Amino acid sequence: MNNNLVISIDAMGGDKSPRVVIEGLAIAAKKNHDIRFILFGDEAKVSPILNQYPDLKKVCELRHTNEMVHNEDKPSQVIRNRNTSMYMAIDAVRKGEAQAVVSAGNTGALMAISKLVLKTIQKIHRPAIVSIMPHYNGKYVMLDLGANTECSAINLAEFALMGDILARHALGIEKPRVALLNIGAEEMKGKEEIRQAAQLIKNSSMNIDFRGYIEPHEIPNGVADVIVSDGFTGNIALKSTEGTARLVIKMVKNAIKDSFLAKIGLPFMLGVILKIKKTMDPRLYNGAMFVGLNGLSVKSHGGTDALGFSVAVNNAISLVRRNFVSTIRAEVEKIDLDELSQEAIYDVY
Amino acid sequence: MNNNLVISIDAMGGDKSPRVVIEGLAIAAKKNHDIRFILFGDEAKVSPILNQYPDLKKVCELRHTNEMVHNEDKPSQVIRNRNTSMYMAIDAVRKGEAQAVVSAGNTGALMAISKLVLKTIQKIHRPAIVSIMPHYNGKYVMLDLGANTECSAINLAEFALMGDILARHALGIEKPRVALLNIGAEEMKGKEEIRQAAQLIKNSSMNIDFRGYIEPHEIPNGVADVIVSDGFTGNIALKSTEGTARLVIKMVKNAIKDSFLAKIGLPFMLGVILKIKKTMDPRLYNGAMFVGLNGLSVKSHGGTDALGFSVAVNNAISLVRRNFVSTIRAEVEKIDLDELSQEAIYDVY
Repeated sequence: MNNNLVISIDAMGGDKSPRVVIEGLAIAAKKNHDIRFILFGDEAKVSPILNQYPDLKKVCELRHTNEMVHNEDKPSQVIRNRNTSMYMAIDAVRKGEAQAVVSAGNTGALMAISKLVLKTIQKIHRPAIVSIMPHYNGKYVMLDLGANTECSAINLAEFALMGDILARHALGIEKPRVALLNIGAEEMKGKEEIRQAAQLIKNSSMNIDFRGYIEPHEIPNGVADVIVSDGFTGNIALKSTEGTARLVIKMVKNAIKDSFLAKIGLPFMLGVILKIKKTMDPRLYNGAMFVGLNGLSVKSHGGTDALGFSVAVNNAISLVRRNFVSTIRAEVEKIDLDELSQEAIYDVY
Repeated sequence: MNNNLVISIDAMGGDKSPRVVIEGLAIAAKKNHDIRFILFGDEAKVSPILNQYPDLKKVCELRHTNEMVHNEDKPSQVIRNRNTSMYMAIDAVRKGEAQAVVSAGNTGALMAISKLVLKTIQKIHRPAIVSIMPHYNGKYVMLDLGANTECSAINLAEFALMGDILARHALGIEKPRVALLNIGAEEMKGKEEIRQAAQLIKNSSMNIDFRGYIEPHEIPNGVADVIVSDGFTGNIALKSTEGTARLVIKMVKNAIKDSFLAKIGLPFMLGVILKIKKTMDPRLYNGAMFVGLNGLSVKSHGGTDALGFSVAVNNAISLVRRNFVSTIRAEVEKIDLDELSQEAIYDVY
């Protein structure tokens, strides 16, 4: 077996690490026979669990460190300590030992170290956090979900470009429909930087199917494959969606609990409930990707279980297989957003 | 009967006006025996429908105009025409003929004319759009939902104050818990103006129960009674919530349609479905209020039905009965946010 593809793993990140991490890797390894993992973490804690998965152990290399990033650590602190499992895992990508890193640790820390160590791709100004999410009859890519609180028009245009590539590579959509998240569909709506970004994308040599603005309530209808926004707005939209989905499910559960008749009907409904549960299962959408860096960094939810962690790992594997990072590099080479932005500003005023 | 309380109505606003407007008023009039309405609109269209509701007709005065605001009209245009049904309806509040105005017309136009005609309350810098919404075990007040794309710390602090008064008056919560919408609970998270607003509210003489930041996914849990944000963020959160609720309901419907077993179970579930439908019914939360003006302006959803329109009218009535506008005026008198903001800026830097 030619184990060319290597994923670097922060074995200590997440609420139930390293157990959930290793169990997740075991699931991912079963599906991907040509993958190797380099694990970074406390040998005393990792080894006993890894020993329970002999098949996984064969494709793992464990590198010891007894330091780790904690949830309460600030990004400005964690970038100074090169001996944490998170830092070492990311550094393995920089060294070329691995093609991607997966961690369930502190998001801010993972972004800060990833930026410092991997650096942004030349000509890309800011990395973004991306997720793949479900809409009514498929999936879409959304970015930025929280890396950049405020974004310029150029940042947004770059996100559009990276989102387009991601939708083609990860979702297999030939010509993704790209839209900017806004509070209205009309041209004059929203913030200045969004209007400028729209001009920038339209006038650029980026060969993307730009559909203008999208309002958040339209997203579930599947009218766009890539939704672009600044990190603050994207994070607000994402968390509003999560909260509402949970509210509706909680309401249904409680209403059934309170109703004698509903309890009788429940067995007939189990198929439907399972189907919805599966479509909405947050574990199946786990794994926010940091894009725009020289190397792929994937953040798993800190509270996920083994299945959820395996999904994050599979996302990383799938993008590495499709040469996601080098595709972005090549496409960015072709266009010059900085120059275009000058034109766009002329256009707007 | 002493018909002291008068509501001014734009009979021509909304998709199915004037029919839905008049049917809505008929519902509202049945519940409120001491109310009079002044209707502004095209007599030839309004009269025939009004004649079908003799009880309502007794408490209505119809004032004719054949001009109206259209959905595609820009705010900058509509403020120049004083003869539209919307303008005249708002102007009746300025003249003191009515205590509140309700319109299902163009939101941007309604806000622009309301601001121009009614003017903001002294010391309040910007009006806000507010709605009352459902959480897991009650209701909360959220503002701004779209009047101001960008807001300063002072604007946000003023929204907190007005939201607090609204929650006391409209929801009957003695000491509302007020929170700023943000993407994290930690003090350093989010945008500068949000962090400054938090300082401003903490240091001010406003006697409100300020709970710091709230993330959107926490809102449905009912941990705050007043959620404060700029209009762009609020609008994004609101529309994300709407979209997700509709997605979940659509998914359930379709899953049931596709399942033979579920169809058998469905009759047992009807009680539960009706209960959820009633709790989530958007018509019951219709009526976004424009607060911060010398007079109350209420926006009904343009596509709502008679029940929805009656809810918007009832919201207006209920706030007028509780002297909402003069309470805001009195409470704003007591504090000086401008002065405080100087201190707050010192505090932050």
